[in-house]
Amino acid sequence: MSTVTVYSTQNCPYCRMAKAFLDKQNVPYTAIDVGTDRAAAQKMIDLTGQRGVPVIVVDDEVIVGFDSERLNELFGTPVESERYDAIIVGAGPAGLTAGVYCARKLLKTLIVSENVGGQALESWAIENYPGYRMITGEDLMKKFEEQVRTLDVRLELVGVKSIRQGAEGLFEVTTASGTLLLAKSVILTQGKQPKMLGVPGEENYLGRGLSICATCDGPLYKGKKVAVVGGGNSGVQTAIEMSGIASSVSLIARSTIKADPVYVKKLDGIKNITIHQHSQIAGLSGDKFLSRITLKTEGQPDQEIGIDGVFIEIGWTPNTGFLDGLVDLNDRGEIVVDVDGKTSRPGVFAAGDVTSVKSKQIIIAAGDGAKAALEAYEYLMKQG
Amino acid sequence: MSTVTVYSTQNCPYCRMAKAFLDKQNVPYTAIDVGTDRAAAQKMIDLTGQRGVPVIVVDDEVIVGFDSERLNELFGTPVESERYDAIIVGAGPAGLTAGVYCARKLLKTLIVSENVGGQALESWAIENYPGYRMITGEDLMKKFEEQVRTLDVRLELVGVKSIRQGAEGLFEVTTASGTLLLAKSVILTQGKQPKMLGVPGEENYLGRGLSICATCDGPLYKGKKVAVVGGGNSGVQTAIEMSGIASSVSLIARSTIKADPVYVKKLDGIKNITIHQHSQIAGLSGDKFLSRITLKTEGQPDQEIGIDGVFIEIGWTPNTGFLDGLVDLNDRGEIVVDVDGKTSRPGVFAAGDVTSVKSKQIIIAAGDGAKAALEAYEYLMKQG
Repeated sequence: MSTVTVYSTQNCPYCRMAKAFLDKQNVPYTAIDVGTDRAAAQKMIDLTGQRGVPVIVVDDEVIVGFDSERLNELFGTPVESERYDAIIVGAGPAGLTAGVYCARKLLKTLIVSENVGGQALESWAIENYPGYRMITGEDLMKKFEEQVRTLDVRLELVGVKSIRQGAEGLFEVTTASGTLLLAKSVILTQGKQPKMLGVPGEENYLGRGLSICATCDGPLYKGKKVAVVGGGNSGVQTAIEMSGIASSVSLIARSTIKADPVYVKKLDGIKNITIHQHSQIAGLSGDKFLSRITLKTEGQPDQEIGIDGVFIEIGWTPNTGFLDGLVDLNDRGEIVVDVDGKTSRPGVFAAGDVTSVKSKQIIIAAGDGAKAALEAYEYLMKQG
Repeated sequence: MSTVTVYSTQNCPYCRMAKAFLDKQNVPYTAIDVGTDRAAAQKMIDLTGQRGVPVIVVDDEVIVGFDSERLNELFGTPVESERYDAIIVGAGPAGLTAGVYCARKLLKTLIVSENVGGQALESWAIENYPGYRMITGEDLMKKFEEQVRTLDVRLELVGVKSIRQGAEGLFEVTTASGTLLLAKSVILTQGKQPKMLGVPGEENYLGRGLSICATCDGPLYKGKKVAVVGGGNSGVQTAIEMSGIASSVSLIARSTIKADPVYVKKLDGIKNITIHQHSQIAGLSGDKFLSRITLKTEGQPDQEIGIDGVFIEIGWTPNTGFLDGLVDLNDRGEIVVDVDGKTSRPGVFAAGDVTSVKSKQIIIAAGDGAKAALEAYEYLMKQG
């Protein structure tokens, strides 16, 4: 049996998912909270060279982040190859809502997703989900998940490698662990993933000063100097949040600050945030960890700034690379849907951030998840 | 000063709204709960000839239902004629969510609606709103309303008579009480209203045995014989609910029972429900109150059945009659929208049950309300 150690912080949903995965597979592990215990944090950094959680150490192997594919290879049990009425890909607000609606229509339903909650997990404070004045993304997603779990829906934590339509019109869904699943209809809700800076060598600094999840890694930058890249709602929200943790925050926006006026108002009152507009990071440097950035600002000479951490909040790429022509995409790579969630291919429906719907919001993803499920039900009824 | 008496039941949202309206206008009134007090119920029926709540007696005038137009005439104060960024018509799930999103964008926003909560108020038990495993429509709508009321949005309880686009592209919204309101954009979320039976003389029995709100009037039919018309989800849900109140329930469906399988399963176990498929009500009769229906069933002779109450659950007509060519409608009279909530006219957006979106659900209306508000915001930004 392997020796497994999980380094995590309390507010990190991916840490919770990693532990939930190990619990489900009956893998014993030692959990170390590096958010509250600075000595443990230093030990993790020394041992693994990582300043980002979760880090899972399996014997001599260091697994960075919640890498469901690698964890499935090491500890997973194969999903049975059954024939489903509906396979839902993704388990964010859209996928979980679709799951509730499919179950209430008594469809034999499987949700396949690398994680539960999707990007919603990364919101610290949601104030615009109707029904809750204020809730964290993680708490809201727990409520969605619990609601699905009261119903007869199967949920498997594994990625999807490919989907094709085979004989008799059945959809063949192949998981990252190689299992073939069959379904009469497919609902695509696999969301999007964060864009990176495009700076040479940035992948070397991921978890070593560069972060794509402030909710996860924020607590590891107490009293340190950080930068947040992105002038939209996410960037400004992250800057505001980090201003209470870090000693100083540089907010870097390629053009101007484009966040909602409510956030811009809040920004004004915070003294340890410096705003750099018309600016971008042109270089990252440091020894083992990131320690300096090169900042390019329009009409000014390049600056070198000492920085311990950089949080990237510059937008997203839809997770549609693996679809390989299954459905029509728009020029941003998003799945084109009609008002009822139908894609270009009969039997395939889509909802949430992965679609061509312009606004990306939890309540919108949830509403469109319901639409997609009800359309899938109608499609199946017509198939007889 | 007038003498005002409000007859109401505890589970009746329109009663609550009528009282809220009177409270807001500082009109003193006597409230009588006819749901728990049978003697009071009989007194109301004798005095007013009504078996449906709310009934509001103002001096000698009997006002049936929450008639916001008449109440505004009697007690209303005119809305100030200001120029808004966005006027939202309707305050159901779509309108209230649009209100939250407009307010967060700091738009000067007015919600104009005859009631708060819309059709959602009439659901006894909602199990498919993500975030709540089970909640009543009224409780959920209270939460939506509270969320709007924490923000800078004005909400006026009055109907809309007409909307036209006038000089400089401004929208002119005229309320039922004759006030002219001006807005740079309009978000239409005014929902739909229940279809009637189409039987001669039925309007005479409304509130006298015929009901379009089981949630409101159900408690007045304790131990009585009732019929529910409609074989969809609403009809079957109402039949199940009324089977616990009434002595017997006849469930009448024009074709077959088409509710979700979960409801059909529940129906099976209930002994005091009789199902009449391929049937419709061809006549209503009785003295002061409804006491008999004529039931037409395919291939059978007409039957006369003794019935104290009939609850109608046969679908809806969108509230678009007053729009008068403002935007394109489909052949069901619904407002045609694109995936982002845009209508055929720039500056006019729509969401919820009033639109061409096929599935009518609270979560869908809420999601599309957010879309419409964000599109309106973008439209206004482009106007400069």
